[in-house]
Amino acid sequence: MPVGTLASVKSLTTEQLKQLGGAGEGHSGARSGPEIILNNTYHLMLRPGAELLERLGGAHRFMGWDRAVLSDSGGFQVFSLANIRKVREEGVEFRSHLDGSAHFLSPETSIEIQTKMGVDIAMAFDECPAYGISHAEVETSMEMTHRWAKRSLEARDLLAERRAVTGGRAPALFGIVQGGIHQDLRKRSAETVAALAFDGVAIGGVSVGESKEEMLDVMRFTAPLLPPDRPRYLMGVGTPEDLLEGVAAGIDMFDCVMPTRNARNGSLFTSEGKVAIKNARYAADEGPLDPACSCLTCRTVSRAYLRHLFMSGEIAASVYNTIHNLSFYLDLMRGVRQAIASNSFGPFREAFLARAARSRADEGRSV
Amino acid sequence: MPVGTLASVKSLTTEQLKQLGGAGEGHSGARSGPEIILNNTYHLMLRPGAELLERLGGAHRFMGWDRAVLSDSGGFQVFSLANIRKVREEGVEFRSHLDGSAHFLSPETSIEIQTKMGVDIAMAFDECPAYGISHAEVETSMEMTHRWAKRSLEARDLLAERRAVTGGRAPALFGIVQGGIHQDLRKRSAETVAALAFDGVAIGGVSVGESKEEMLDVMRFTAPLLPPDRPRYLMGVGTPEDLLEGVAAGIDMFDCVMPTRNARNGSLFTSEGKVAIKNARYAADEGPLDPACSCLTCRTVSRAYLRHLFMSGEIAASVYNTIHNLSFYLDLMRGVRQAIASNSFGPFREAFLARAARSRADEGRSV
Repeated sequence: MPVGTLASVKSLTTEQLKQLGGAGEGHSGARSGPEIILNNTYHLMLRPGAELLERLGGAHRFMGWDRAVLSDSGGFQVFSLANIRKVREEGVEFRSHLDGSAHFLSPETSIEIQTKMGVDIAMAFDECPAYGISHAEVETSMEMTHRWAKRSLEARDLLAERRAVTGGRAPALFGIVQGGIHQDLRKRSAETVAALAFDGVAIGGVSVGESKEEMLDVMRFTAPLLPPDRPRYLMGVGTPEDLLEGVAAGIDMFDCVMPTRNARNGSLFTSEGKVAIKNARYAADEGPLDPACSCLTCRTVSRAYLRHLFMSGEIAASVYNTIHNLSFYLDLMRGVRQAIASNSFGPFREAFLARAARSRADEGRSV
Repeated sequence: MPVGTLASVKSLTTEQLKQLGGAGEGHSGARSGPEIILNNTYHLMLRPGAELLERLGGAHRFMGWDRAVLSDSGGFQVFSLANIRKVREEGVEFRSHLDGSAHFLSPETSIEIQTKMGVDIAMAFDECPAYGISHAEVETSMEMTHRWAKRSLEARDLLAERRAVTGGRAPALFGIVQGGIHQDLRKRSAETVAALAFDGVAIGGVSVGESKEEMLDVMRFTAPLLPPDRPRYLMGVGTPEDLLEGVAAGIDMFDCVMPTRNARNGSLFTSEGKVAIKNARYAADEGPLDPACSCLTCRTVSRAYLRHLFMSGEIAASVYNTIHNLSFYLDLMRGVRQAIASNSFGPFREAFLARAARSRADEGRSV
């Protein structure tokens, strides 16, 4: 899922988003672009505000997007961006990082805001504990997240009932497993959340400062504990290699700012490894960014042009780079789905990881 | 002509540039997008450099653009951006505003660089005098510009001859009329430049600090003195109203950063007048930016969404706004051409200016 924090996948028009990837060119059955994107509740409740967003017909209509939208609950951003005034059983009082204005998020208000946003999938409101706190502190936090999970579900069901009266609806709701890097807590959290009537289950509380190996360990340990009959979503991860590891562990859905943020920083993913486009070696490189890619960027301009735009600080650098990085991720996941369908995910994954390892070795040589 | 300073019309991919305007939708005979853009010699000679640009196949291939390109001569930027070391009869020694590196531009080197860039139309190298200097100083500068005009033509002819041997070509070349705000000098300059074998003639040295009325006076006085059998180009102008005044005076071509720069600053041109999209009155405005416009922006998103993107500092704000502003200018000029073809330019211009005056009055009331 590309990240569209403020109801905008950074650098792209909604039209460009729909045309991402090499599909849509007629050589593939699938339509181009992602089927689902993520919007951020915390950011959108502050700007433009949930009430206004509802009046304007919700996030889809606001950005002219006719496919699915998933929203996070705001929990992660409240704990990482806002000035927190007080966390209590009821919810979190915080001040906006934008203007210091006072706000309150709880399971009930988060679900209400996400419903006003008109998203297809909402996330339960959770506390996302910082990395490095004690087992006991993680446990206390996790237990509150579990109580908040039940309240989130009840809030959603109540809203669904109320809205049904006027022909409206409430979103599907995913629960979130917490527990830090502790297996006993992750196990208890997975069992608790799986026992609730969520439409899907996510692994939260990763990519918060732990090492890559710790993240992968948590993911590999937790994923098999999630219900097999519902979508499994790994939040905030990660590199292309991470995604393949996630799929191997049984994960169905991912979101990450990496493809879009790296694009703006000139760090580009290709089938031959990562390309730092500002590198002088690309100054006269007439080839496409990724010869194996058929996105608009790779079809229409050269590495030399992309380097020129990036070095000159042109806005179009972000646009071209974002088109490519997101297309690369979408193509990767399309390849994954095809490999799974043809029972060849194992070889697919091994081939990809071997190629990635080779290109890292190449980089080592040429630097 | 949209301005593509660094071989990029700011905020847009080349693909988006080709799709500008409401045409290309099948409801018009004309293809969408501009037929010609402007590239800046000064900027491109510094980044990525003329030699590299030539090796990469020229500006068209560099940016994936298969329509026409006109380049300025570098003169204007040398005098406005660079640290000038010395202006002499031979040319101008200057230091780059980017890194202080030393460079030299003369009629011969400017034409050589523009030829290496592979543009379709090059401009003669001229001195663009500052506003406010004396009649005598403007005259001295103008006389050097005339000598440089002859040298520019000779340089182009020599390059055309040399390149013809290997099947190559040199660009068409336009001369530039100078003379500040002085009618006697403008008249002499127009006669001098018209007498040379240029493929087109431009009015330069406007939009350099003089008042709007002075600019229009110079333009109205000078345009009729230009040869009727060759394109007439007014450099660096202007607002939609200015363009209509220019056409009325007999001008054929314009370039200006106004539509693209204003777009990035949230100042948008519409058939109902200028829209400052950050204005709170648009926060809940579900209507299109310009109901009379059929560009991608007006077709797919609302004023409320455009305001949200702009207030949030999203890159997509620049993209959507640029798409609209350029489409507005292109549609205006398409309307002008149709009106001229149907012998109704007078009424067309009056109707547009009356609408603009009404909307300015409306703005006055509602502020």
